Amino acid sequence: MKALVYYDSKNAKIEDVSTPEVSKGTVKVKVKYAGICGTDLHEYLHKTYVTEDKMILGHEFTGEIVEVGEGVTKFRVGDRVAVEPIWGCGECAACKKGNYNTCVKMQSYGLHENGGFAEYVIVKENNLFALPDSLSYELAALVEPTAVVLHAIRNSSFKVGDRVAVFGAGPIGLLLSESLRAAGASKIFVVEVNEQRRELAKEMGADIVIDPTKEDAVKIIQELTNGGVDVSYDAAGVEATFNSALESVKPNGEFMVVSVFSKPVSYHPAGQLVTEKKITASLGYNNVFTERIDLLAKGSIKAAPVITSIISLDEIVEKGFEKLINDKSESKILVSPSK
Amino acid sequence: MKALVYYDSKNAKIEDVSTPEVSKGTVKVKVKYAGICGTDLHEYLHKTYVTEDKMILGHEFTGEIVEVGEGVTKFRVGDRVAVEPIWGCGECAACKKGNYNTCVKMQSYGLHENGGFAEYVIVKENNLFALPDSLSYELAALVEPTAVVLHAIRNSSFKVGDRVAVFGAGPIGLLLSESLRAAGASKIFVVEVNEQRRELAKEMGADIVIDPTKEDAVKIIQELTNGGVDVSYDAAGVEATFNSALESVKPNGEFMVVSVFSKPVSYHPAGQLVTEKKITASLGYNNVFTERIDLLAKGSIKAAPVITSIISLDEIVEKGFEKLINDKSESKILVSPSK
Repeated sequence: MKALVYYDSKNAKIEDVSTPEVSKGTVKVKVKYAGICGTDLHEYLHKTYVTEDKMILGHEFTGEIVEVGEGVTKFRVGDRVAVEPIWGCGECAACKKGNYNTCVKMQSYGLHENGGFAEYVIVKENNLFALPDSLSYELAALVEPTAVVLHAIRNSSFKVGDRVAVFGAGPIGLLLSESLRAAGASKIFVVEVNEQRRELAKEMGADIVIDPTKEDAVKIIQELTNGGVDVSYDAAGVEATFNSALESVKPNGEFMVVSVFSKPVSYHPAGQLVTEKKITASLGYNNVFTERIDLLAKGSIKAAPVITSIISLDEIVEKGFEKLINDKSESKILVSPSK
Repeated sequence: MKALVYYDSKNAKIEDVSTPEVSKGTVKVKVKYAGICGTDLHEYLHKTYVTEDKMILGHEFTGEIVEVGEGVTKFRVGDRVAVEPIWGCGECAACKKGNYNTCVKMQSYGLHENGGFAEYVIVKENNLFALPDSLSYELAALVEPTAVVLHAIRNSSFKVGDRVAVFGAGPIGLLLSESLRAAGASKIFVVEVNEQRRELAKEMGADIVIDPTKEDAVKIIQELTNGGVDVSYDAAGVEATFNSALESVKPNGEFMVVSVFSKPVSYHPAGQLVTEKKITASLGYNNVFTERIDLLAKGSIKAAPVITSIISLDEIVEKGFEKLINDKSESKILVSPSK
């Protein structure tokens, strides 16, 4: 089969590899779509999580079961499925409380075992979720990133009626904005430097979009909320957004990091102290795929506008990774291995 | 009367000033003891909060009412009282929710109005709390700093049975350690560079004391808790304690800042993200003086070991401020204006 084999930073190639075989408790999924995530780009640029010599990347994928292994009881050939790509060690305190996303030995398809940038993937039964007929494969490819934002919102102190600010309108920022609207936010600010992304944000939940290169985002947010939003989210991951997102929050409010920072930040704890703000962080998700699929199927968010391109597997490096790195008007790119 | 008049950084003098007069809704308190706080030292070294040309410092004080103004109904001459020194604007969103400690216009005796380093202070009736006969004036002088730690514990996610770490064993760290024991912490680590303070910590709640100049505090805490404490508290306020306290917390745990940082810190949000730790902050207190006084009166904590010296008002600069700045074996120094 055809697959994207990743070797090292900036070294990933489409190759013919042997098609993987099912084993006990696993199924073979024919991949319909696999989304390219910021984590894939980060790994493509700087080898970080992958420790094997070669790895098929891709953890946001959906498809059809074409073969089931021994002992698989809940799924059969022909089932349409979304895949929750992560799992924990099952032994640590975090895992025992159901927080397998914060297990320090957490693993994922596409980083620790072969993932979805391929024609076929072997997936453990426990990581499969059945898709309702009404949910298209295109939307099903967004189950994973929308699970990230669902977990973030549920993991934060956000309550219906709250005012919120989202810093950064990449795929996660946009899906967060739209999901916050669906969750009943009374006012949503989105702060983003790129014009096309700001336009997309208006379509996806934002009441007020701010270009921080032209306007003082903190000042505008503080003024229009009479003292700050209830919760702000950093979906950009740089020092400037960290400090602005923290300053945009009201006294006793919450600032949540949902982005992967590649560098340390400098910030002043005294500013946080005098208004007792919280700085929290949300990573991935746990135990929300069923709810996420139900919400997508009932149309609580559209999500689809975040998909800016659908490409073939052969095009993934040039029209996927490199395009996303160089062209900020792109948002979510789906890869179709059967295209 | 005699008072410590503060003019500017390193410029504070004992002077004879006119004794203040009661006005409507206020009482005159004859000060028995006034504790020296880290905030006083900070202000003495770097004028920060005081905006008036001259100010009598001191916000941790207790005494006896010697005169009551018009309209005062709940107190009378001879009452022994503790003073909650802060108040908010009463108008902002924080104040309306009872969080007057995070009001951006918050004020305090000893910083915005004349405080307790004097023979007499004028105090608004609303800021007075009656002392039970069983509570000595020495302990009553500790109501304010112990209210700080009570608010911090209640404001954090701490629950009875939790394991905790306290970084820094100055007065707040020590009182925090002792109050965490009283609150049912199952294991208390105290990390402190000064030997005398570590000895005091053993007396005041610590199960395990660590000298971070000789041992790797994070490693020890992680090992002895199999992955980190539930809550850590920074009562030191420097970059090293900030990062160590954050790293000492288990996945999904909480790190709370209770100290005033004088400089920004550098930290990596990615480390926080992968285990979804929370960084929170606790400032002062609100609505806990009655509970604090009851707890002190019933002996839930001893608190007294934190008092290392009692000095006269005349001695406050040399044997108070300068001593605390230069001698880390000192902890809480009480000033007795009638001595």
